[in-house]
Amino acid sequence: MPKYSIIVEYIGTNYSGSQVQPDKVTIQSELNKALRTLKVAAGFDKDGKPKTIKTIFSGRTDAGVHSKGQVVHFESEKPIVASRFLNSINGILPYDISVKSIQEVDEKFHAQLSAKYRVYQYRIVNRQHRSAWDKHSLFVREPLDIERMNKSLSYLIGEHDFTSFKSMRGNNPAKDCIVYKAECKKEGDIITFEIAGNRFLYNMVRTIVGTLLMIEHNKFEPEFMKQVLEAKDRTKAGPTISPDGLTLIEVGYEQYNLVK
Amino acid sequence: MPKYSIIVEYIGTNYSGSQVQPDKVTIQSELNKALRTLKVAAGFDKDGKPKTIKTIFSGRTDAGVHSKGQVVHFESEKPIVASRFLNSINGILPYDISVKSIQEVDEKFHAQLSAKYRVYQYRIVNRQHRSAWDKHSLFVREPLDIERMNKSLSYLIGEHDFTSFKSMRGNNPAKDCIVYKAECKKEGDIITFEIAGNRFLYNMVRTIVGTLLMIEHNKFEPEFMKQVLEAKDRTKAGPTISPDGLTLIEVGYEQYNLVK
Repeated sequence: MPKYSIIVEYIGTNYSGSQVQPDKVTIQSELNKALRTLKVAAGFDKDGKPKTIKTIFSGRTDAGVHSKGQVVHFESEKPIVASRFLNSINGILPYDISVKSIQEVDEKFHAQLSAKYRVYQYRIVNRQHRSAWDKHSLFVREPLDIERMNKSLSYLIGEHDFTSFKSMRGNNPAKDCIVYKAECKKEGDIITFEIAGNRFLYNMVRTIVGTLLMIEHNKFEPEFMKQVLEAKDRTKAGPTISPDGLTLIEVGYEQYNLVK
Repeated sequence: MPKYSIIVEYIGTNYSGSQVQPDKVTIQSELNKALRTLKVAAGFDKDGKPKTIKTIFSGRTDAGVHSKGQVVHFESEKPIVASRFLNSINGILPYDISVKSIQEVDEKFHAQLSAKYRVYQYRIVNRQHRSAWDKHSLFVREPLDIERMNKSLSYLIGEHDFTSFKSMRGNNPAKDCIVYKAECKKEGDIITFEIAGNRFLYNMVRTIVGTLLMIEHNKFEPEFMKQVLEAKDRTKAGPTISPDGLTLIEVGYEQYNLVK
């Protein structure tokens, strides 16, 4: 059966995260429904019953988190014509979910297991007054010092045990991650934090941003980030900040290029 | 009584236009409510009853139309401290309405009557497939020719009778407007149409965009725009296009600077 990978974009605000959950509307449940309507990625079993759609995401995104680059794979009974598929599925999906592209992939490809890195962005609006146009971002009134923030973030680069930034709710025992990039940029009053890593623990990016803002609010030294990291203790880190500023930007299947 | 002008930003999607209407939630009704909570722009009449808030908008925007520059004036019993006012009102207003700035104005200032020009923008997304991230814009799949569009728009510059582009629902007898600028720009797959004029008739900007797209869809000559204008007949123009792409950008109180 041909196997396909697609790039899925979404505004997560109206969804209970990416992964299928009973009785919840999620990105995956909407995507599966659309694929079922298109009669791809399913087919019938030997008793003539429609097979369950099986879509594999590169990883889960939490409720309220957005995507510009979620990768999903699935198998299809019939070969898919890209342009026709994109027209059809984008006509069926709700306005806040879309499929950007589709490509046929090798049978060994796995959206989650083959991924070499993920890139997330977190958007902060940093000015005196909020605006009706501030969307999908965190509003911070107190002026932030981007150089100090980048100094704090520099301690995260490399391979570390990120237990301190991992939600206590998650039950995956793994805790080592390699962070390739962790950096803030400022354009006008918009601060964009970008982080690239081989993988991220549950709530890790949001807790890193929460800790970064805790350091700024309290005028702690940037070295505080290092102490939190080394403590391997979730209670030392800052709060898990709002999901609304967070967007999954890219999932990469080649080694991360450090020049990026 | 001191008089103030404020710049009001909003996402119009959830509102029945800018102006107060009975039993409808509008930008003005929310703004008046917030000013009443702040106990400014009102005071008490001689019988000790709270006075009705009176806010004057530079002009009405239709249901679903947005603003980055709506100007509103009102009088206040007490002098207003700008920073405290902005903090307070933005804390009270719904997330999709905000006040950007406030300044004290001369008693002769009138948000509508003193205005010399208005600038509107209309945003078109021009590509093969829609995206979940396309917001407050019109999605057009067919490739648009920006040079042809600018040629069509050039016929609108100057003082004309814009009856052809005026909603038949409006009952204002005036129909002459001076258009200072009418131009499209393309960045990537986003086309931004900007129009500046001394004033605009009811639905005029949306009908101009509708006509522009009608010319493109049908491969009419750009001169078609001139014929529509000269016909002074609403039935010759294109449809009144969706309000969601339209934003009031600026209201000017000095002569329009053609260099803009």
